[in-house]
Order: sequence, then C-alpha cells, then structure tokens
Amino acid sequence: MKPNDKKNKTSESKNVREDKVIFNLDKETQFSDWFTEIIKTAELADLRYNIKGFLVFQPWSVLAMEAMYDYFERDLQKRGHKPYWYPALIPKSNLTRESEHVKGFVPEVFWVTEHGNNEKLEEPYALRPTSETAFYPMFSIWVRSYKDLPFLTYQRAQVWRYETKATRPFLRSREFYWIETHCGFKNASDAYQHVLGDMQTTERVMHQIFGIPFIFFQRPQWDKFAGADNTFAADTIMPDGKIIQQPSTHMLGTHFAKAFNEKFNDESGQEQLVYNTCYGPAISRMFASVISFHGDNKGLRFPFEIAPVQVIITPIAAHKNPSVNAKALQLRNQLFDTGLRVEVDSSDKMPGEKFYYWEMKGVPIRIEIGPKELDKNVVMLYRRDTETKTEIKEKDLLNAIQKNAFELSANLRKQADQKFENVIRDAKDRKELEKIVNDRGFCRCNFCSINLDGARCAETVEKEIGATVRGKRIDKDEKPFGTRECVICKQAAGVVVYIGKQY
Amino acid sequence: MKPNDKKNKTSESKNVREDKVIFNLDKETQFSDWFTEIIKTAELADLRYNIKGFLVFQPWSVLAMEAMYDYFERDLQKRGHKPYWYPALIPKSNLTRESEHVKGFVPEVFWVTEHGNNEKLEEPYALRPTSETAFYPMFSIWVRSYKDLPFLTYQRAQVWRYETKATRPFLRSREFYWIETHCGFKNASDAYQHVLGDMQTTERVMHQIFGIPFIFFQRPQWDKFAGADNTFAADTIMPDGKIIQQPSTHMLGTHFAKAFNEKFNDESGQEQLVYNTCYGPAISRMFASVISFHGDNKGLRFPFEIAPVQVIITPIAAHKNPSVNAKALQLRNQLFDTGLRVEVDSSDKMPGEKFYYWEMKGVPIRIEIGPKELDKNVVMLYRRDTETKTEIKEKDLLNAIQKNAFELSANLRKQADQKFENVIRDAKDRKELEKIVNDRGFCRCNFCSINLDGARCAETVEKEIGATVRGKRIDKDEKPFGTRECVICKQAAGVVVYIGKQY
Repeated sequence: MKPNDKKNKTSESKNVREDKVIFNLDKETQFSDWFTEIIKTAELADLRYNIKGFLVFQPWSVLAMEAMYDYFERDLQKRGHKPYWYPALIPKSNLTRESEHVKGFVPEVFWVTEHGNNEKLEEPYALRPTSETAFYPMFSIWVRSYKDLPFLTYQRAQVWRYETKATRPFLRSREFYWIETHCGFKNASDAYQHVLGDMQTTERVMHQIFGIPFIFFQRPQWDKFAGADNTFAADTIMPDGKIIQQPSTHMLGTHFAKAFNEKFNDESGQEQLVYNTCYGPAISRMFASVISFHGDNKGLRFPFEIAPVQVIITPIAAHKNPSVNAKALQLRNQLFDTGLRVEVDSSDKMPGEKFYYWEMKGVPIRIEIGPKELDKNVVMLYRRDTETKTEIKEKDLLNAIQKNAFELSANLRKQADQKFENVIRDAKDRKELEKIVNDRGFCRCNFCSINLDGARCAETVEKEIGATVRGKRIDKDEKPFGTRECVICKQAAGVVVYIGKQY
Repeated sequence: MKPNDKKNKTSESKNVREDKVIFNLDKETQFSDWFTEIIKTAELADLRYNIKGFLVFQPWSVLAMEAMYDYFERDLQKRGHKPYWYPALIPKSNLTRESEHVKGFVPEVFWVTEHGNNEKLEEPYALRPTSETAFYPMFSIWVRSYKDLPFLTYQRAQVWRYETKATRPFLRSREFYWIETHCGFKNASDAYQHVLGDMQTTERVMHQIFGIPFIFFQRPQWDKFAGADNTFAADTIMPDGKIIQQPSTHMLGTHFAKAFNEKFNDESGQEQLVYNTCYGPAISRMFASVISFHGDNKGLRFPFEIAPVQVIITPIAAHKNPSVNAKALQLRNQLFDTGLRVEVDSSDKMPGEKFYYWEMKGVPIRIEIGPKELDKNVVMLYRRDTETKTEIKEKDLLNAIQKNAFELSANLRKQADQKFENVIRDAKDRKELEKIVNDRGFCRCNFCSINLDGARCAETVEKEIGATVRGKRIDKDEKPFGTRECVICKQAAGVVVYIGKQY
C-alpha cells in the first residue's frame, strides 16, 4: 500500500478516524497502482499461484461474480437459451476444421498431449479457448428440421488462452470466466435479430444492473472474430481513459455450418445450412470494470445487487450494554430471512477501524447500533456512495434498506454514465484526434470506411497515433459531419467511427 | 429404445394411452438398459462427443445439477465455508510434492505440455484430478496465526481423470462435476469435528433433499484417499444391488502441511503444523443416484426441490375454447412469480402424448386444464409418484402444489430408504456372505480388522467373491455378533463391516 499524501476532503473532515485509514489512493491519477492495490487489500484475487497468468479468485470476488452470473443466466434463460455443460477439451481435429478460426485461435491454445506417465494421447486436445468447434458438431446431430430452430444454448465456463501480451488480473489472464451462447437459425435475418437481442441483454444486465455504460460497435472488417461474418462488441472505458472491450456478439453466418455439416430441412423439405451466432459476456473481465468504474479513493463501491455482502451490521460499544450484540444478531437474522446478504462484524476492532474496513470492501450499506440507538429503538444507516448517515426507526429498517439500495445503485450508474459521456469528444481532423486520444478521450470522427478498404488508414491510427478504430456504433445511425472527410486520408468519409487507446 | 414386452400394471389399466408410450423398461430386471436409455430419451447427456469418456451435459440434467449445487453450497456457506475459484491447472512440481498423493493420482492425470504451434511449456501442468496441491500451497501463504483457523474453503469445479476402467455416464467419466472443500485446523480434534460436520451436510442435503439414503463408513486402511490418515465415505446402492461411493471426507492430518509448509503460530507463539480436511461431493455422480434410485419403468421421477421443471401445465382441448390457453398462461405466470420452475406445454401433441412425455421426464406435478375445468374454476393435479389425479379449486392451487410437493419428496425418500434397508442383510459365515452379495445384497458381517492386518482377508473377498469391504459404519458403534469370528479367516473379529459388489 502506498497511502496518498494529499488528504481528500472526506478524510480531512473526519480526521478522528485518520489513523485507521487502510486504503487511500487517488484513483484518477494513480489508477494502475490503485487497481493493483485494491485487488490485494480487498482480497479479490491472489497472484502468487505458481503458474504465470493464472489467479486464485478469492471469496470477495467469487461471491460478486456468482451474482453477476445469475443475472446474465436468468436473462438468457428468459430469452429461451438452455444451459449446457460441454467438455473442457476440444480435439485438435475439431479446432482446425474452420480455416479462419484455426488461424485466430491456434497460437493461443494450451494443448493436452499426454496422460499418466508420459503416455501419448490418441490426438492432442485443446483446452477450450472458446467453444464453437465443440458446440457446432453436436448441433449437426441435434438440428434436423426448421422446427428445431431457433436452437438457443449457452454454458457458463472458464476458457484458457496462452496470452502473449502482458497479463493483468481480471482484465487479461490465461484463464478467465465467461458465458458463451451458441445458437442456430434458419436464416441471416433471424440470426441478426438475435444478435440485437444480445445487445439488449448487455444493456439490461451490464448497464442497468452492474452500472457499466458502453457503446455497442460494429467492428471493422479487419477486427472480426476468427470465423465470423461480422462482429459487434461493447466498449467501455477504464479510469485512465483506455478503452476496454466487454461482451461481443458475432454473426457467424454459415462458416461453421459448412465446416461441421449443420443442415436442416426447411418448410418445403429442402436442405439448408444453419446460421450461427455466439455471444460472450466475460464475467471476470466485467468484474474489472465494476471495480474500476465504481471504486473511489477509499476502495471498492459495489452496486447493491451484486455486492458480496449487501449490508454490514456493526455493533458499537457492546461492552457497555450486552444487549447490543443480541440486537445486532436479531436484525441480521430478520434481514437474512428476506434474502439479503447480511453480516455482523462482531470482531474486537474499534468502530472506526471496522468502518474503514467495510468501506474499503465496498459494502453498500452499513447499519450501526450502540447503546444510544438501542434505547431509542433506532439504528444509524450509512451509505457508501453518498457517505451519509441517517437515523432510521428500527421498524422501518427493511424499507429504508430497499430504498437506499435502489438509490445507491442508480447513483453509481449515473456517476458512471457521466464519466463515460465526458470522455467522448468530436475531432474534425487528425490533429484534434491525436489531442483527444492523448488526453484520455474517446474520439468520435469521420473515417473513410470500416470495410477492408479502410484498413490502411486504421494502420496509420495504430502505428502513428497508438490508438485503434473501434467501429461504427449500432444504436444510432451517425452520418459524417463537418468536412465529411476521413480524419486520416481526407477522402470522402463513409462512416463515423470511435477511436481510442486500447487497454 | 427397447420397449418392454411385459406390460406393467399401470399401462394395462390405462391402455387408452398405450400407443403413445415413449418409455417402458423394467428398471429392476433390466437396469443397465434402463440407465442407458433414460439418459438418451430424457436428453440428460449426449455421449457422441468425440473424446472418449467425455459427455455433453444437456439442459435437463444441467438444470437439476445446478439446483443440487445450490443446496450443497448454501449448506457449506452456512457452516462458514467461503467460495474460491482455483486454476484448473496444477504444476507438476506441486502435484508430486506429497509422496502418497503422487502415487495415487499421477497415473490418472491429463498433462498439458504445449502451447500454440508445438511450443513446450516451462513445465508440464496437470489438469486438476483433485486440488489439494493447488489449495494448500496458498494456505501456507494465508494462514499465519491460530486466529486464522479454522480456515474453511470450497470450490465448485470440474475435475479430470484418465480413467482406465470402463466409463459410464454420470457414474464414472473422465470429466466430472463436483464440489471440493479444503480446510485448515489447529489440531486433529477440531479437524475430526469438521469431518463429522461433513457427514451431517451429506445427511441434510443428499438424504433429506435429494432423497438418497447412505451409510457413512470409515474406510479400511488399504482403501484410503492418497495422502490421508483416514477416509470416511458414504455408500449407497444402485438398483442392480451394486454399491456406489458418494461423498467422501478425509482426515489429511499434517501430510500436506509438511509437504507445503503450512504452519501457524499457536496461542503461546509456538510454530505448529496445520491439520487439513477435505470433502468431495460429486454432483454429477450424485445425479446418477437421483435418477436411478427414484426412476421407475416410465422414466425419471425428480424430488420436487431439484426438478428442472417442477410443475408442467398442459392445456387440454384448447381448440374448443381459446380461453384455456390464456388461463394456462395466467396460472403459469402466477406460479412463476412465487419462484417455482413452471412451464406450459402448448405444443400441438395429443394430451396423452404430453402426459407420457412429462412423466418420462420426471416432472413432479402436472396441472391439466380444459374447457370443463375452466367452467368450474378448477384444475386437475397429477402427481408423478402416486400417479393420482385430484381436482383442485383454482384458488387453492399454490397451497395444493406446496402440499403435494412436500409429500412427493418425502415419499420418494421413504421408498428409497426402504429399498436400501431391504438389501442390508447379516451373514454369520462366508457361505452366507457369498449368497447375500450374489443376490444383490449389502452384507453386514464380522471381520478381523480394517487396519492393515485385515488386508489379506479383504483380498480374499475381492479375488474369490468379487466383492469389496466397505469399512465400519460411523453412525453406530456396532460390536461383533454371533460367533464373533471373521467371516473369512475365522480369527476373533475386531469389527463389523459391510461387504458388497462395487459399481
């Protein structure tokens, strides 16, 4: 820990607790340190496991990510997706069947080649880097008729990729946790409707529940998923202004259907190829956005819905009145029975120390109860986002928690939305583009094309400016503005794109 | 499918539906076929994935197993266990650190040796066959003081073992789904108390909720977990009388603490070794017991709590009155909002066909609604276990479902308990022992010893009788009876054991 010298306003005004500060780093100016330290201090993951790029995820992140899985799975099930568990291993002969897919993934594969004491397996098996080549061979067995379509599946699973870039916990590691959906459709139009549905799931879950704002882009043709006709991906920002990709969804067309013989008989009895789509919300990477978007200089701040502990009850001065602990436990049991994740901190730490600890951990609501409160049949309710305390009548506690929980999550989302909007700025030429992306901005500008004829300008952006073209947004039809010239080649712009530095 | 020629009573008495029978196999006399066919017909798992011993688990088993995971995880969390996600890979240097553990597990390991295009990894990594050698090195970092103990963890995960025995779906496959707990304690006595707690968890979840009866045995010394001081395991039976091991819990003593340097400072500041225990409920194997214990000749029968669909609503003769479908949907939504897993079958199949289908699938409760019921504001409630129909007033529906759900689960459990009790029989000598185990029985008898001095008699049981000594039961202190002589060597018996044919 490197405590920040500059005291922030809050700690100045409450300097009675100053000596107990356990986390204080300026997120905006020292984001890289902040991110590393909060993972350690809040015990989110331990990096000391002895395989490079592999983490041990600890309870405080696992509990939140389990809640995140639940929200995504419920949304997918509601849309008709059914859950599967596929093998973690994929035969090499499957993985190498679709030519673009091979090129994209084989360099990153971990291979299982032996068993027991140096005995060779019949063929090498890939630890799945993604599961198209596991799912679609089975689709070819199961899907026979147009009546079997749409065929909507998903699995929650981890995947393994031998990343050659520097790994970063939660953001880019060699093992990560995700959901992958795989679907089959009668035609491209049904497939595209489903891809739009994936974007709506992203909005309902990642934005509305987790509070992470994003823009869904159609990726340029030179930046597609290996084996897709078209890739759509949600980009959001990190506090240092870098762009990070969150869920992506892909129009796979009939590439995998051809490779794995996925065919069905249509209404007139004709044999047709199945159209596939897949969607991949990466839970462990989304968790990185949850902690870095919502956290502040004191530590984590969880949206109520996915907090590992939603309400922490801290008894105060219990030695003066033993009924304090009994009351704390009684409240805990009452709240627990309503389905809340609630705990009592009955450790022998001083109150200030407990407060700092649970604030650092990001617990949304703290309930304080001491002899004074006991006498008056009240409790104090502290909110992590506003840092305010309110006296609540004991009988109104559940209502107050629900109301504050709702407001807190909405407030975190609003603060995140504002941050995101603030970084988006228009550039009318290359000079402005460079200024914006070097100033932690996400630049909106005219561009010649996101088809392959735009690849050369994109290369200039990457090599000379150190940024990437993220694509054309999907939710709005944006027309070239101002000069209507590509910011790089000055040719007539065909499209408005967003450019930023990539994480 | 191989329909059974002998009609059973139920199908004779309802022969109006005869032509629509989709599953009918005598479970008792044709168990092996029954098991294979129900997995296929109910779409529990597909065996056609192209790696030997690996399954694709389909929605109907995944949804049930997710519910089973939930019950186990909630029980463990209530006991203070915290969830972790450990890497799926274990460095060879970890796995080979504890000498007994190496011998037991290395022959079954899948090894990851390469990445990308034939590039060697720095060292071979095992796909975890179990995770002691992943967890305990981290314990040595985290546990410092007696205040950190007990240290109670778990993870839900799959494990991989290169089985050389014949694989069987859910029962023995090369990839299976389980929970593994790993714990650290100050001394052997605390560790043993926790092991007893694992047995209670098994009773509360596997028996009370899943309805699977078992006996917890202390395993003979020659049949311990590789690296344990003592192994305790729950045995239950299959319908063919064979014994199958369900969860086991292990007193690991200080073997792993020595291998991985797990030490703590006790109350007096002395450095001590940590005592470890681990417990491994295998969800996919328990699912095998759920389907084979509770299933009948018509197919599956799920306890209500873990049924993938708990209530199926079948509209009847909806073409005669369009309000039937609307009512079915309205009831579905009402029940759904109370948290039930409920669906409407609005396919265009005939009612009888729908009935057979959902009976085969094991749905506990069916609600039928047609024009007649609509007029009277009633529905028909069918129960899968008793095969009875009752008219229920619409306003009493939720109550009736809850009451019948409770009774159904209790009834399945009672039926299972009776079957289990019926197979346990006493033998006073070797001849009786052979008769019992050859007649699908689980034999209780006198035995010389379950310490290493009994190993020779156990070998006789295995080689000459084709059965195994399962150990001494834990829940009762059973004393040698009758002649008080070992059934094999006729020496004075030190212990009462159970012997049966192993799955």
